[in-house]
Amino acid sequence: MKQFHDRIRAEGRVLPGNIIKVDGFLNHRVDTALMRDMAKEFKSRFDLTGLTAVLTVEASGIALATICAEEFGVPMVFAKKAKSDNIEGGLYKSEIYSYTYKKKFTLIVASQWLGPQDKVLIVDDFLANGEALRGLVEIVEESGAKLLGIGVAIEKGFQPGGQRLRDAGVHLESLAIIESADESGIVFRGE
Amino acid sequence: MKQFHDRIRAEGRVLPGNIIKVDGFLNHRVDTALMRDMAKEFKSRFDLTGLTAVLTVEASGIALATICAEEFGVPMVFAKKAKSDNIEGGLYKSEIYSYTYKKKFTLIVASQWLGPQDKVLIVDDFLANGEALRGLVEIVEESGAKLLGIGVAIEKGFQPGGQRLRDAGVHLESLAIIESADESGIVFRGE
Repeated sequence: MKQFHDRIRAEGRVLPGNIIKVDGFLNHRVDTALMRDMAKEFKSRFDLTGLTAVLTVEASGIALATICAEEFGVPMVFAKKAKSDNIEGGLYKSEIYSYTYKKKFTLIVASQWLGPQDKVLIVDDFLANGEALRGLVEIVEESGAKLLGIGVAIEKGFQPGGQRLRDAGVHLESLAIIESADESGIVFRGE
Repeated sequence: MKQFHDRIRAEGRVLPGNIIKVDGFLNHRVDTALMRDMAKEFKSRFDLTGLTAVLTVEASGIALATICAEEFGVPMVFAKKAKSDNIEGGLYKSEIYSYTYKKKFTLIVASQWLGPQDKVLIVDDFLANGEALRGLVEIVEESGAKLLGIGVAIEKGFQPGGQRLRDAGVHLESLAIIESADESGIVFRGE
């Protein structure tokens, strides 16, 4: 998606610590028309035959996952981040470490909304270390559902999450893979 | 929206403490087609002339706000819930008390995404005590933007948030107003 690369380059800001800020159109103020283009792009990249749900995690994945779910004609399910161990039953759970918040979270999904009959596409806005996505994959496995793939808006190609998922055999599609980002600019994979 | 009332009655569950669980279609698993119908309903109820943004708060308001923003052709901005006082500058802030989590949060919106040139519709999934919406209204006021109104999916009419906002002169539209909910069933305002 060249238009998406151009947008990241034009409006994204690179902050110290390899942080790429795209909060003007992706994860604070959201350009919904861009999300719609992304959903259509995912549709062309995955075989979504039999898809029953789009799965993401709160909060910044929800906008893209919502538009994807509507585009594909299925419900959107978002995992919640529980901050305590005091969680009721009837839930799929996966513990992840957030590098952003520097603490552990438990991702939870009510077991009634995902099961062996489901075929799931996971969608998220960012992939860096891949902890959130690893947690979502675990929840899909725990539920017995079939994982059709993972669609990501921006992957930080210089962090290990994407490679780990591909090595595990997951069909991962990232619409922009950033190879490097510093004061001299952003370089995308394949350029 | 009679179809929405019927859906709440058919699939909602009333839990002790006046909790109404609608997580099968509104705020855990999300029916995006229903969100689209709601967006169209809001369009018919508000004068959205000059609208520049839909504003909500993470996490469960994002799905509805995203579909509304796309329907109205404007960006969606979501306030973040900061858990600490250690917040950088350039932000609008409002402190709220969450009855759900029984603690204070600071809602934050980067000041570059909202200003005096903006006309805003606030959207959220639930209105009970109205703390989150009060916080969002404060942020709109702080930014100098004009508030066109507030659109809510479900209002708990037996809690004070809705009345407070109406008394303050806000144009509030709730697609379902629940007057009472207990083991005998759910009663909507106007029935």
